[in-house]
Amino acid sequence: MRDITCAELPSVVRVGHATDNQGLTGCTAIVFPKGAVCGHAVAGVATGSRELPTTTPRHSVERIHGVVFCGGSAFGLAAADGVMRELEAVGIGHQTGKGLVPIVPAAVVYDLHIGDPTARPDAAMGAAAAREALGGGAAHLRGNVGAGIGVSAGKLLGPERATKTGIGQAGVIKGDLVVAALAVVNPVGEVHHMEDGRLLAGVRQSATSNRLVAAREILQQRLHQDPLHHNTTLAVVATTAKLSRTEACWIAEQSTVALARHIEPPFTRHDGDVLFAASVGDEAVELHFLAMLVREALGWALTDACLAAKDLGGLPACGSLEVP
Amino acid sequence: MRDITCAELPSVVRVGHATDNQGLTGCTAIVFPKGAVCGHAVAGVATGSRELPTTTPRHSVERIHGVVFCGGSAFGLAAADGVMRELEAVGIGHQTGKGLVPIVPAAVVYDLHIGDPTARPDAAMGAAAAREALGGGAAHLRGNVGAGIGVSAGKLLGPERATKTGIGQAGVIKGDLVVAALAVVNPVGEVHHMEDGRLLAGVRQSATSNRLVAAREILQQRLHQDPLHHNTTLAVVATTAKLSRTEACWIAEQSTVALARHIEPPFTRHDGDVLFAASVGDEAVELHFLAMLVREALGWALTDACLAAKDLGGLPACGSLEVP
Repeated sequence: MRDITCAELPSVVRVGHATDNQGLTGCTAIVFPKGAVCGHAVAGVATGSRELPTTTPRHSVERIHGVVFCGGSAFGLAAADGVMRELEAVGIGHQTGKGLVPIVPAAVVYDLHIGDPTARPDAAMGAAAAREALGGGAAHLRGNVGAGIGVSAGKLLGPERATKTGIGQAGVIKGDLVVAALAVVNPVGEVHHMEDGRLLAGVRQSATSNRLVAAREILQQRLHQDPLHHNTTLAVVATTAKLSRTEACWIAEQSTVALARHIEPPFTRHDGDVLFAASVGDEAVELHFLAMLVREALGWALTDACLAAKDLGGLPACGSLEVP
Repeated sequence: MRDITCAELPSVVRVGHATDNQGLTGCTAIVFPKGAVCGHAVAGVATGSRELPTTTPRHSVERIHGVVFCGGSAFGLAAADGVMRELEAVGIGHQTGKGLVPIVPAAVVYDLHIGDPTARPDAAMGAAAAREALGGGAAHLRGNVGAGIGVSAGKLLGPERATKTGIGQAGVIKGDLVVAALAVVNPVGEVHHMEDGRLLAGVRQSATSNRLVAAREILQQRLHQDPLHHNTTLAVVATTAKLSRTEACWIAEQSTVALARHIEPPFTRHDGDVLFAASVGDEAVELHFLAMLVREALGWALTDACLAAKDLGGLPACGSLEVP
């Protein structure tokens, strides 16, 4: 599954990144040139978001045109302004009486405790990410890129003892059915390998140690209060399966299972997890079968986000940890 | 009630506007310098929004720091970026491990069919509105100002037959209990006077006529399809009553009653109505009594939004209509 990315869906899903390698923040634009029928689920409660009501069955506009994942906490929502402008410029959006309005929900991760806390993605970075997406060619990237540049896992005892993570991708192809998951992995909790459950990223024994401590041991102690605030796993699962918005919302709810299974503790009160499910095709698929593929694809994307990350900002990534 | 505005709450509610008098768009920042416990209700389904999940009981941050109402359809959400930056600069926001993050939900109106459709509020306009709010002195304004500059009512037969509306304010003071409602009134439907039900703003007989046609007559015909898209009534009701977030959400739901009673047709599928209820004090008040005051205050604010508007952009306001 780990070799499948959004690059498998070039005509209907485009991905671009803008990365501030000095400030250690960035944003990632997932663009649907032909629109997508999309639902979302909020798993964590500490969200920072734009336009979430557009990915519910209740909203009057049936298709969205992209999703933006941003660093910079709620300040990073500015990146969506730039994505909207770029999509409008190339004729992608919802037709209104006076012009196109691109529908672009967005969600943020808190990455201020790595790099420069005053560096946040802005509209210009959003525009750059959208241009890269529209140009093609970046949909296969993962690791320390875009919204993944400043993310980490395992902050139960403070951000300085976390493990570096990044953006992960995974998916599955079965004939004309494609499921592609992209995740930005920045949880309070630790991340376990999809296949064998081994710990890939979590709390280190000290700020200078490369050895992990299991979250289940830490959770029995008093937690570090302050830096728990604002963490998040964001994901979009794009599929060629035909879905209504109600079905897409259910598939998004099902995708939270991957977080529940592979992150410990999952979606705490300090996580603002938002998961999108986007239908970009017309394949008839049994919903429970699709849900299984989505759970597996996102589970592998979480694993990939750990394995693809590199050491950065004083935090070691998976490959630099000592094997327990 | 019509002589009461947010200016009655100077230490806890500040209001500022940025108005593009050429492009006929703008934004309005309502700032809570000491924070507010806030709930929201979505009455129309065609919303454009930021950060709505922060005004639900589920969200981890208990207080918000402002609300932004924006013209420019979803493009106008950029104004909230500027409001956030200004609030951060003066030390208003949610304390995180690495600095303040102001929590600033936002919602938009569609005003592209008046003035220049390419003119939309941006971060600079949001910042200007926030500075005016923080400086005080603008909280009494109503009519053609801020997010109210490009709004109108009565678009069942197209925007060119609408009536100009604007921002309205109204409220009530009973000892230490203050209820202040501010509304940006841009519905598909027509608006009726709070007191006697007479028609204040609605569909005119033609683009050059100043005589109104009742919506109930129009609704029996086939409607003009295109320009129905994207209309909205936005409101915030601020009160010194002490409310939990669950109670604030219920009060926001109750405020939708004012739209139901005084707008015809109310919250259509082409309206994106978002209503906020903000608790900025500690007064103990019976909730149903408070809800009654809120319904009345918002009803009067809708009336005020019609009476305070002036002719603009080819659309006559209430004072220029022929009395039927």
